[in-house]
Amino acid sequence: MKEEIIRAIERVYATSPLVHSITNYVVMNVTANALLAAHASPLMAHAPEELDDLTDIDSALVLNIGTLDAPWLESMELAGKLMRAKGKPVVLDPVGAGASRLRTEASLRLLDMVRPQIVRGNASEIMALAAEIRRAEHLPSPADSPSTKGVDSLNDSREAVDSARLLAERFACVVSISGERDFITDGERTLMVEGGSSLMPLVTGMGCSASAVTGAYAACAAPLIAAAAAMAVFASAGARAAEKASGPGSFLPHFLDALYTVDAHDAADRVRESSI
Amino acid sequence: MKEEIIRAIERVYATSPLVHSITNYVVMNVTANALLAAHASPLMAHAPEELDDLTDIDSALVLNIGTLDAPWLESMELAGKLMRAKGKPVVLDPVGAGASRLRTEASLRLLDMVRPQIVRGNASEIMALAAEIRRAEHLPSPADSPSTKGVDSLNDSREAVDSARLLAERFACVVSISGERDFITDGERTLMVEGGSSLMPLVTGMGCSASAVTGAYAACAAPLIAAAAAMAVFASAGARAAEKASGPGSFLPHFLDALYTVDAHDAADRVRESSI
Amino acid sequence: MKEEIIRAIERVYATSPLVHSITNYVVMNVTANALLAAHASPLMAHAPEELDDLTDIDSALVLNIGTLDAPWLESMELAGKLMRAKGKPVVLDPVGAGASRLRTEASLRLLDMVRPQIVRGNASEIMALAAEIRRAEHLPSPADSPSTKGVDSLNDSREAVDSARLLAERFACVVSISGERDFITDGERTLMVEGGSSLMPLVTGMGCSASAVTGAYAACAAPLIAAAAAMAVFASAGARAAEKASGPGSFLPHFLDALYTVDAHDAADRVRESSI
Repeated sequence: MKEEIIRAIERVYATSPLVHSITNYVVMNVTANALLAAHASPLMAHAPEELDDLTDIDSALVLNIGTLDAPWLESMELAGKLMRAKGKPVVLDPVGAGASRLRTEASLRLLDMVRPQIVRGNASEIMALAAEIRRAEHLPSPADSPSTKGVDSLNDSREAVDSARLLAERFACVVSISGERDFITDGERTLMVEGGSSLMPLVTGMGCSASAVTGAYAACAAPLIAAAAAMAVFASAGARAAEKASGPGSFLPHFLDALYTVDAHDAADRVRESSI
Repeated sequence: MKEEIIRAIERVYATSPLVHSITNYVVMNVTANALLAAHASPLMAHAPEELDDLTDIDSALVLNIGTLDAPWLESMELAGKLMRAKGKPVVLDPVGAGASRLRTEASLRLLDMVRPQIVRGNASEIMALAAEIRRAEHLPSPADSPSTKGVDSLNDSREAVDSARLLAERFACVVSISGERDFITDGERTLMVEGGSSLMPLVTGMGCSASAVTGAYAACAAPLIAAAAAMAVFASAGARAAEKASGPGSFLPHFLDALYTVDAHDAADRVRESSI
Repeated sequence: MKEEIIRAIERVYATSPLVHSITNYVVMNVTANALLAAHASPLMAHAPEELDDLTDIDSALVLNIGTLDAPWLESMELAGKLMRAKGKPVVLDPVGAGASRLRTEASLRLLDMVRPQIVRGNASEIMALAAEIRRAEHLPSPADSPSTKGVDSLNDSREAVDSARLLAERFACVVSISGERDFITDGERTLMVEGGSSLMPLVTGMGCSASAVTGAYAACAAPLIAAAAAMAVFASAGARAAEKASGPGSFLPHFLDALYTVDAHDAADRVRESSI
């Protein structure tokens, strides 16, 4: 597996995939910078009139509902369907799922209509989506319940692994849960990534940027390896940046510097099979 | 009073309030980072469909008209009314009031319909709003008149204290004027905050971030103390960041680092009763 | 010419022009910070209701189609026409022209309806616009053809000089092509600017910020000198920032610091007449 991660990183570096994001206003700038630092190319566009043209040249599409509204959701659904029809990968970041019915329902609708290959969220978001499915289908609820604070998770990533498996099976996708440890599962196999820094949740858009970079890797590897490789380069760069940062403000420039020169072996060493 | 400021800071740290901003595109990222560095949680959302759900979990709401348009103004008014009905604090930042009739009128309409507890603006904005009220009510105009340069003030904060008092009385709110010295008044009592750095006006969104952090404090203290405490942590962090910065670019990371580890006593020492 | 460049820089410093941008969401923050660091004042506003008021106080307008959609294009056209009617300069940045028909057509429509004094783009964008004109008019195509990767250019700026001349002649404007070397032409005279850093394409919004600062200079000098002076201060600041940066993340704060204290003589020395 270590070799697969390294190969994915090498392929991103060699091909510099074009990652089209329809994402939230808060993180557009940091997301674009993270993609550039990760040796990919960013593109942000939401006008329905140009989605057919752009999905022709896109390597991957990332849908992020962080500041969703009705017209942007329509663009996300249209772009997602175009990408799937053209056989290209889509990543969904269900930002704030569980915080409002609109976000929970929009995420499930995009999962259903677009069928993204990878869903990347925090523990609360993944648990909220699984809880809604269990509720709708009268399945028993687990002991742990999701707890969000707006768009931030109050749950540990480990708590969300069962929910991630449910989503992975139901929508035939890979689910990537970020947290102090990241868990990535296709429903059967589960990988764990360790690293990063406690400063990362204090910088807005780190999770959204991880989703964007997951898009870059989805263009270069199979979904499970792609999702794990993206989290691994973030974990590696985050650990390195934390050594130099004096706080959340100086963390971001150090993180982007570290992401640009990430050590593929260090990143790959952070990924393990998990038996949770 | 010093103890009240320190207590407000401690309460923000202990409770990490969820601050919902409906704000302008330019500053969303820096605002979210400032809230995180100030030990609060940011949330940005404008879709009318989710405002009832989100105002249930919000600790405070910040309305900022920096890149206003008709649909966003409707969202601001709806969210503002929901918060007031739920007994939660609202802060208004009337960005660019005076630069266009739309901005002046939108600010006064939000003041009238939402009745925010705190208005935080620069001197020109506060003076422009008071001037419009005086004009509509055929009140005599003072010698000083507002002078904006787009969204930047050409007036000194001291000039705007009378205007702030007029707004405070008319709308039963606290008015916080940022500038080299900040003045905060409820119409009767006026506080002054000293500190910060001459680099702060050279970084976009510092005023808007102060408004957002004012929201965090409004969830943890009475309006006058909340508004003063927010300006005090900014003044303290700004002064510390200026010692390390080499210019406006390096100022921002240093500022966020300093904001995260602000000294509550240093902040509280910067607040004084003003006899202006 | 060196004296003209220095005079333009001095005039920007002395007058701090108010640059109104209707631009893309990704770069609004960095663009505003670049304008402040370049001693200008930023203003972002798109609501049609306030464009007449704002164009009264604007020193220059910058139109940037990076995240265009139908309502924003309407605002751009309205604001552009108002500025021209009021005798004030307009700069167009045709972000992603060539990547979608919408972007190519929107750029040509704005060129035709607004008649901006300056067009600032990368090589692929300029070549795509010229190619569309040649195609529509059945003119012979040159050997070089435009090649974009979303919003990034795969062409060298030198390749685009003939296309820039075609646009300059057709629309009576100055065309400024950014790249490792920048070329600026009014159709007859062509200037070249050298400097900058290979890190600049790794930071999102550097080109868009150059367009915004071109707006500041367009308020203070004739179009050819204005466009060259803006690229020269960017080239000078970029070269200085590169000496201090450890990667794309730390480049941006260093760049803004350098831009704020740019050496007008170093900037002017980077501009030369080109005989291409």
